[in-house]
Amino acid sequence: MSRPDDDLSPVRPIEVTRLTGEGRARVADVAATEEPLDIRLHGRSFAVIMRTPGADRALAAGFLLSERVIRSGADLGAVEHCRHPDHREAHHVVDVFLLGDAARRLPAILEARRHLVATSACGVCGRATIDELRADVVPLDTSWTIDADCLRPLTARLRDTQHAFEETGGLHGAAIFTRAGALLISAEDVGRHNAVDKTIGHLLLADAPPAGAAEVLVVSGRVAFEIVQKAWLARIPVVVAVSAPTTLAIDLAREAGITLIGFARGASLNVYTHEARVAGR
Amino acid sequence: MSRPDDDLSPVRPIEVTRLTGEGRARVADVAATEEPLDIRLHGRSFAVIMRTPGADRALAAGFLLSERVIRSGADLGAVEHCRHPDHREAHHVVDVFLLGDAARRLPAILEARRHLVATSACGVCGRATIDELRADVVPLDTSWTIDADCLRPLTARLRDTQHAFEETGGLHGAAIFTRAGALLISAEDVGRHNAVDKTIGHLLLADAPPAGAAEVLVVSGRVAFEIVQKAWLARIPVVVAVSAPTTLAIDLAREAGITLIGFARGASLNVYTHEARVAGR
Repeated sequence: MSRPDDDLSPVRPIEVTRLTGEGRARVADVAATEEPLDIRLHGRSFAVIMRTPGADRALAAGFLLSERVIRSGADLGAVEHCRHPDHREAHHVVDVFLLGDAARRLPAILEARRHLVATSACGVCGRATIDELRADVVPLDTSWTIDADCLRPLTARLRDTQHAFEETGGLHGAAIFTRAGALLISAEDVGRHNAVDKTIGHLLLADAPPAGAAEVLVVSGRVAFEIVQKAWLARIPVVVAVSAPTTLAIDLAREAGITLIGFARGASLNVYTHEARVAGR
Repeated sequence: MSRPDDDLSPVRPIEVTRLTGEGRARVADVAATEEPLDIRLHGRSFAVIMRTPGADRALAAGFLLSERVIRSGADLGAVEHCRHPDHREAHHVVDVFLLGDAARRLPAILEARRHLVATSACGVCGRATIDELRADVVPLDTSWTIDADCLRPLTARLRDTQHAFEETGGLHGAAIFTRAGALLISAEDVGRHNAVDKTIGHLLLADAPPAGAAEVLVVSGRVAFEIVQKAWLARIPVVVAVSAPTTLAIDLAREAGITLIGFARGASLNVYTHEARVAGR
């Protein structure tokens, strides 16, 4: 059974191109690991969630309480990583067996999710998730450049649009700009993903084409897999975040032809993928 | 059709009990609005998501792109709020009609989610979401107190456990303490909800009872509805967050008998619900 360290550690070594305004250097860094976990009930996939490896059994137990599949620890029988010796991704599968009332409710629970099929495959991994997406969407053109000085003001400009955040401290923000720095749309939401969906959806619904191409998505927080997926599906080639990206966000951005930038604060930019698209220092 | 302002504004006025270490006062504040949105395809509920009201049509369009139901704006026909005049929550429903290929794929899409039923009810709201949960779970006992000085160190102590965050800046943290301040368990994850599920799940799986009752859940970021729901299902009566709560988190905590504390930074504590449980100033 393969258990590559980079899959199971909560952090993974990465390389990043750091631009400071005064220079540009390739430096070693680390990113938080994000990998899918397949939670199975009596052999059937119940949910696949993105998580940081570690405490997988506890995550499965807590998730099942939150989903109201179980009511207490007494409803849990065996909770263990898949032990099938032939399957390479078994460390990304937790098999759960229920007891008592929860076991008796199981047919109704599975019926409610009957689109989920019993499977003999043992697990998914980030690589498979990316490949599945790649089969459906073509990578973006990486042959043009954007100047670092055009990117630097964008997180502050996003913040300027976040009126409700200023009042509450409780909202995520997202905005879409052209490569020349024209703001096309911004949105706020308690959900990070919703804020991104609102900006992209606004462009989808627009009666007239926007004043320029949607080329830079700026988000107020961290960047996990789903945000990069949204950018790819919307064909937005540059993603800029105020905070850190996950490993799977970096891997997906590399495949998608997306330039992924994190820790965009003041003059500093960390470019994780397709750094040739960013000109300057 | 009822359109109460507090449902549709991105922020809602609230009252909070602010403890500074030197005093205790009831003050006016605002919180980010969180309410469910029901996204329907050709009259069938496709997904209910928690969001901040505003740009609902755009959110529905962007969400359907992210879910790969549509591939571009050309797949979208009508996208509009439910117009049924008899339904009070119509502003929490967006009806979407698809065109072309997306419309042709619709039967397969609905088949994959066939547990979702056609419904004549027009919308859900936070109140209904709380009532549905309340039918299943009893409120917690609010008759005991915890000293504010016991709560103040907990966010710093959570931070001390976040080793991977220190390295990456990319992980959320959660920890569970007793009312005396004993740390029972902590966890990190790229997902805020996962970090909470890991801590609760650890207690569910423990062979021996923990060294004390799980009484205080501490989280590194903001608190939306789902975090309070997890605490309630796990019967943890105090939730402390470093950042802001949403309106629905506050409303649910009030119903659940949970003391919800936000902006716990240094000596400052904002107590949003069941403030009588917190002694001191």
